[in-house]
Amino acid sequence: MPITRSITREYIGKPIRCKAAICRKSGEPLVIEEIEVDPPKSWEVRIKILYTSLCHSDLTFWKLDPSAPPAAFPRILGHEAVGVVESVGEHVEEVKEGELVVPVFLPNCGECKDCESTKSNTCSKFGSKLFFGMPRDGTSRFRDMNGEVVHHLLCVSSFSEYTVVDVTHLVKIAQDFPLDKACLLSCGVSTGAAWKVADVEKGTTVAIFGLGAVGLAVALGAKQRGVSMIIGIDLNENKFEIGKQFGVTHFVNSTTCKEKSVSEVIKDMTNGGADYCFECIGLASLMEEAFNSSREGWGKTVIIGVEMHGSPLTLNPRTMLRGRTITGSLFGGIKPKSDLPLLAQKYLDKELNLDGFITQEVDFKDINKAFDYMVQGKSIRCIIRMDH
Amino acid sequence: MPITRSITREYIGKPIRCKAAICRKSGEPLVIEEIEVDPPKSWEVRIKILYTSLCHSDLTFWKLDPSAPPAAFPRILGHEAVGVVESVGEHVEEVKEGELVVPVFLPNCGECKDCESTKSNTCSKFGSKLFFGMPRDGTSRFRDMNGEVVHHLLCVSSFSEYTVVDVTHLVKIAQDFPLDKACLLSCGVSTGAAWKVADVEKGTTVAIFGLGAVGLAVALGAKQRGVSMIIGIDLNENKFEIGKQFGVTHFVNSTTCKEKSVSEVIKDMTNGGADYCFECIGLASLMEEAFNSSREGWGKTVIIGVEMHGSPLTLNPRTMLRGRTITGSLFGGIKPKSDLPLLAQKYLDKELNLDGFITQEVDFKDINKAFDYMVQGKSIRCIIRMDH
Repeated sequence: MPITRSITREYIGKPIRCKAAICRKSGEPLVIEEIEVDPPKSWEVRIKILYTSLCHSDLTFWKLDPSAPPAAFPRILGHEAVGVVESVGEHVEEVKEGELVVPVFLPNCGECKDCESTKSNTCSKFGSKLFFGMPRDGTSRFRDMNGEVVHHLLCVSSFSEYTVVDVTHLVKIAQDFPLDKACLLSCGVSTGAAWKVADVEKGTTVAIFGLGAVGLAVALGAKQRGVSMIIGIDLNENKFEIGKQFGVTHFVNSTTCKEKSVSEVIKDMTNGGADYCFECIGLASLMEEAFNSSREGWGKTVIIGVEMHGSPLTLNPRTMLRGRTITGSLFGGIKPKSDLPLLAQKYLDKELNLDGFITQEVDFKDINKAFDYMVQGKSIRCIIRMDH
Repeated sequence: MPITRSITREYIGKPIRCKAAICRKSGEPLVIEEIEVDPPKSWEVRIKILYTSLCHSDLTFWKLDPSAPPAAFPRILGHEAVGVVESVGEHVEEVKEGELVVPVFLPNCGECKDCESTKSNTCSKFGSKLFFGMPRDGTSRFRDMNGEVVHHLLCVSSFSEYTVVDVTHLVKIAQDFPLDKACLLSCGVSTGAAWKVADVEKGTTVAIFGLGAVGLAVALGAKQRGVSMIIGIDLNENKFEIGKQFGVTHFVNSTTCKEKSVSEVIKDMTNGGADYCFECIGLASLMEEAFNSSREGWGKTVIIGVEMHGSPLTLNPRTMLRGRTITGSLFGGIKPKSDLPLLAQKYLDKELNLDGFITQEVDFKDINKAFDYMVQGKSIRCIIRMDH
């Protein structure tokens, strides 16, 4: 069945009944059920999802210990997507019905001190409750057929035929942008633009911890900047072959580092440490290895992975004193509303190979296969086609 | 007795017998004794010390647990000084007899990758054994009258009438530079140039943890850059009055923060956190407070204090992810041989108020008084005049 962008005006102002893949229990397969999606409130937009893709963060939220916030069940996961605007709530002027939009987990109000600054991408007006992901009034727009509330994820919840997203979490894109590629701009690949944050320079060495979509996107950016060595660190040996296509020149399988730590191996390979290290997984222990792998003098470590276990990051202040820097960046440091269209243009100009990230494609009814592929380490991005 | 710069040529190539203040036991008053100072070996310079000053790091080494490296007794402390070259070893061409030099704890070989880069000030050729502070061949140039070896400190050991310093640790300064001010360039005040590392901008907010010489120098630099708010944090209330002279606009007495942590108090004062935080003490717990006091989005924390207790720095990676940065810097990130003459010129141009740092002056024989002043919190810098 072809994906259709057409929308109907008959539900404007009313709930829509549609299908959604609901995560009812931590780690159990999603269940496709009928739900009701409320009309958008003020500042909100109801979107018909066309394509969505599975990001590793969905897996993280899927497996969360139910007793620990930000766990919430039942919940509609999914935060990489592209869709068409079905209707808009009061005060929404930025997008209108029928327009193509990419939802993003990071808000961008455009008015706060952070949104107005070029130095920050963490909206200080709406960014604080990010990991709970509910609409700004704290209530859900989703109910199951028993009338039970279904929770949102990261202000997006794209594993549903329809969803409601705050306008601060939406980026409009060109109407003719290829739909299956558009959803990739929504999170992982864009987050990999973190090589910008570090201002990676020609001739330098880069170590990337974790070769998922984010890590590979970092590699791609670093390659384009002409770095001399890109070391990929992963525990899945298959990732090296994939990594080569994105510019990875050397591989360290962290499971085989027995006599020396990963950081010692990297120091040996780079004659003292990498100029830039990127942590793309979200494990405090790996962040420490990344920091320790960075060169004294000017080594810079960028934390991109979201640590979800509450583990602290423990560093030796004495080694930091020798000119090392560690910084963190959500969404690769890019500002959704201004930078995402630039990334989209890069794709159209053939400077950003989005196609290379797509390893599988499934229909919405087979969404659990996407989870299987990722759990088995076979997937960079599995695209999920909504069955409209 | 006036300080005389005159040197004699009669000891060239031979040991010199002179007075030194020896630290024989951890935390006990220094003892002025006769010692023998060997002639300089290759790449070394023997210096007649004219003025020296007491830095808080001397106190740290003075009080070190004897069982923990880099403790070493007996030892000649002191690393802020100015002196005149008495004789030079083989291969030394950079300085010659009679020239005025400032020794620095940080080496600057001028040839390694780090010394050649503008991004680093941590000499990778000689920087690794910094905290042990012995000459490059690992042996001492000092012996007491019983023939026992006396250890060096930070490659300087200026609490002696004569000392031997590697040429990589020396900076030549103008012959007419005021002597009692010159020794201040040797460590603390220069380290406070760390506001350069952070590139502190006009109109921003700065929090300085620890109002010793380093912290006050940071304040002075920040003031000159036109920041809007300089918060000084110290447990000595008297430091606020002194701090005002260096640009500190607000004060937090950390001992009176009971209901709220220091970082919460600073967040309240700055509407979310300071743009730049400087840790100038060397306590891991204070580094954490500094980091937590920095603003999300672009807050930058600079660690200048040397953590001597081996305590780890524990950070929350989730809060780092929101655009915070933490970096470390030895000697304020400045390169001794190229940047120190620029600071000296700033003093001559009346842009750097070195005079304001001097709180006391004592003769060498009264050196223990300098320790007393600092222990009692009465001193920023006590200048010690050698009794030549």
